[in-house]
Amino acid sequence: MRWLKLTLAYDGTEFSGWQRQPGRRTVQGTLEAAWRAVTGESVDSTASGRTDAGVHALGQTVGIATEARLDNATLVRALTANLPEDVVVRSVENAPDSFDATADAVSKRYRYSIHCGRLPDLFRRRYVWHIPRPLEVAAMHRAAQSLVGTHDFASFQAAGSPRESTVRTICELSVQDRAGEWGEQVTIEVEGDGFLYKMVRNIVGTLVEVGRGKRSETSLEEVLRARDRAAAGQTAPPHGLILVAVEYGVEDQRTVRP
Amino acid sequence: MRWLKLTLAYDGTEFSGWQRQPGRRTVQGTLEAAWRAVTGESVDSTASGRTDAGVHALGQTVGIATEARLDNATLVRALTANLPEDVVVRSVENAPDSFDATADAVSKRYRYSIHCGRLPDLFRRRYVWHIPRPLEVAAMHRAAQSLVGTHDFASFQAAGSPRESTVRTICELSVQDRAGEWGEQVTIEVEGDGFLYKMVRNIVGTLVEVGRGKRSETSLEEVLRARDRAAAGQTAPPHGLILVAVEYGVEDQRTVRP
Repeated sequence: MRWLKLTLAYDGTEFSGWQRQPGRRTVQGTLEAAWRAVTGESVDSTASGRTDAGVHALGQTVGIATEARLDNATLVRALTANLPEDVVVRSVENAPDSFDATADAVSKRYRYSIHCGRLPDLFRRRYVWHIPRPLEVAAMHRAAQSLVGTHDFASFQAAGSPRESTVRTICELSVQDRAGEWGEQVTIEVEGDGFLYKMVRNIVGTLVEVGRGKRSETSLEEVLRARDRAAAGQTAPPHGLILVAVEYGVEDQRTVRP
Repeated sequence: MRWLKLTLAYDGTEFSGWQRQPGRRTVQGTLEAAWRAVTGESVDSTASGRTDAGVHALGQTVGIATEARLDNATLVRALTANLPEDVVVRSVENAPDSFDATADAVSKRYRYSIHCGRLPDLFRRRYVWHIPRPLEVAAMHRAAQSLVGTHDFASFQAAGSPRESTVRTICELSVQDRAGEWGEQVTIEVEGDGFLYKMVRNIVGTLVEVGRGKRSETSLEEVLRARDRAAAGQTAPPHGLILVAVEYGVEDQRTVRP
């Protein structure tokens, strides 16, 4: 048995999210079917996290334990040949024994894209939230800095999520804009050690309220203190969100064996 | 009765081209159904040209003669509300009497996008031709300059096209590349007074053969002279092609009435 780390990109538009579900087209189900076609094995893959329906990935990481003897480059080619065009295998690498793509992740980076223009950006409409009004981007960026650091993010967790620690560390959160062919493109990049359920989309939705002038720049500290989902803003739609990259420790202690 | 010029953008992926056909989803059929929903009128719209299945537009122009009394801004809003998300009405403007979107066009600009990278560019895959090898872009650009000017383009017309004059004038043809997140992006821009059936895609396919080193830089003059489709290269796939803009004379003589 050996452990592999796959890095996947996918267009989430036509998937019911990552997690395998009977009768639904999911990324996990699609990947595991391709794996079965290539190796004959039925595997139970684990991802760094379960992306929701409509959420995209450039660098989702997936752990698979396998008996297959195909080398990694052959696996990339064979999986590619067996996957639909909205899933791309970027790499297959050896991972430490008992690699757990979920638990071993030390940081994740997400990108959320917003397009502010009168008309929708036709060719990017599946990947951006279209808001047909300008946003105060500098105010959004300043407001966002209150969330950087280690905080209890309970206010940004989807209501009804299973209880656990709601403390997380965000090491970077930036809001930037640039001019595009169809109007302003606003990009929110966030990196942290982990995110609660819908936390990124709830942060984005709250920052957009700042950008629209409906919420003050300084209100995010109060939102954190409230530890109440009702204190934060709306949940941004899933299709603007991309899981960009997941980092693992350079060396996992379990790679050291007697 | 008044004449209008509509400017449309569309994602051609899920359309069987521009032209209305029974039982097929076409841009013309979709637009005319929206027009009927908004005005109650059944119109016969004319486009600057009939884009093929899979070809996109940023600036397709369409002529409609109407008795509707709605003002142009209202028409934009009402059509938008009645069109699917892969068609965008960019503008509705008054046109000269008897405006003919096909015959009155004085120039058209197309853009063809190629992505050279090992892996497909996931989020642009519907809009670019993926060629997983590098191309000699400078050679393609130099070769393309033989086509600029007034020539008989019979060699670049799809075989079996209806006979007519095959002389056209290309005023600009450029091949440029830039680095992208997933590898090199090659853009071919062409502007001319008109194009024969599949002419742009046949020019692109022939230039790609130059870029792959399968055809010499200087061979395009011979291809023109041959006046034979077999002398040119393959037809590039439709999904890399975008009709960018159509120009009309600043003043149409028919606008001057007694």
